[in-house]
Amino acid sequence: MKKDDCIFCRIANGEIPSNTVYEDEDFRCILDLSPAAKGHTLVIPKEHFQDALNADDEVLSKIFKVAAKVGEGMKKALNADGINIVQNNGEAAGQTVPHLHVHVIPRYNGDEKMVTWTQHESDSEEQKRIAEKIAAMI
Amino acid sequence: MKKDDCIFCRIANGEIPSNTVYEDEDFRCILDLSPAAKGHTLVIPKEHFQDALNADDEVLSKIFKVAAKVGEGMKKALNADGINIVQNNGEAAGQTVPHLHVHVIPRYNGDEKMVTWTQHESDSEEQKRIAEKIAAMI
Repeated sequence: MKKDDCIFCRIANGEIPSNTVYEDEDFRCILDLSPAAKGHTLVIPKEHFQDALNADDEVLSKIFKVAAKVGEGMKKALNADGINIVQNNGEAAGQTVPHLHVHVIPRYNGDEKMVTWTQHESDSEEQKRIAEKIAAMI
Repeated sequence: MKKDDCIFCRIANGEIPSNTVYEDEDFRCILDLSPAAKGHTLVIPKEHFQDALNADDEVLSKIFKVAAKVGEGMKKALNADGINIVQNNGEAAGQTVPHLHVHVIPRYNGDEKMVTWTQHESDSEEQKRIAEKIAAMI
């Protein structure tokens, strides 16, 4: 289902023009207007889902395959050294448009890391408890 | 195919113990030993692929579905506000273990953003050329 007031629904379905690098029945892949690096592409499903956590299995089984295909083509086309694939769920994770999308971003040796985090030490007893807690919800 | 000298092959196939949050025929999902946040999970295929760009379609069609399922469970189990799903291809993208894996990381309101980039302005003529260049390689 398409949502009329969703900008990504309108872009994915071709109502708003975009620089499309790939399109099939289910997805449109477009250049980000404010790219992290030249070639930064968004994989956008034509159907509306807020994020990956409430998307249906069919879209989830296709979206990463499309992202990898775009990444492979991008790597060749732009001579990139690496590719980041990033998908944010919720504002707390940095999601700005509430329509499921995957970022595919070319990276080059010597680039500053775009995905960074502080590695924390972990306590083995606590890890065990956390693993059990998550496992119980899957 | 499993690679004997690959640590993630050995973990995924249960030769090295781990805190497993989910396992099926194709994947083992384990807590990262140096987590970005408590619950940080790695989705690791049992079969060896260096990264997403050279993985086969079957694994690509399953891995994101598993990551989303883990993210959903993690969000409930840990009362997270958001979930980052990140997959790095190549050292230039921050990949440290050369065996395909997806990071699933819980985020909370007020957290520092973990995935950040500078948004660059884009020139519409240049964007058109870049899109055509990538499209030709997909």
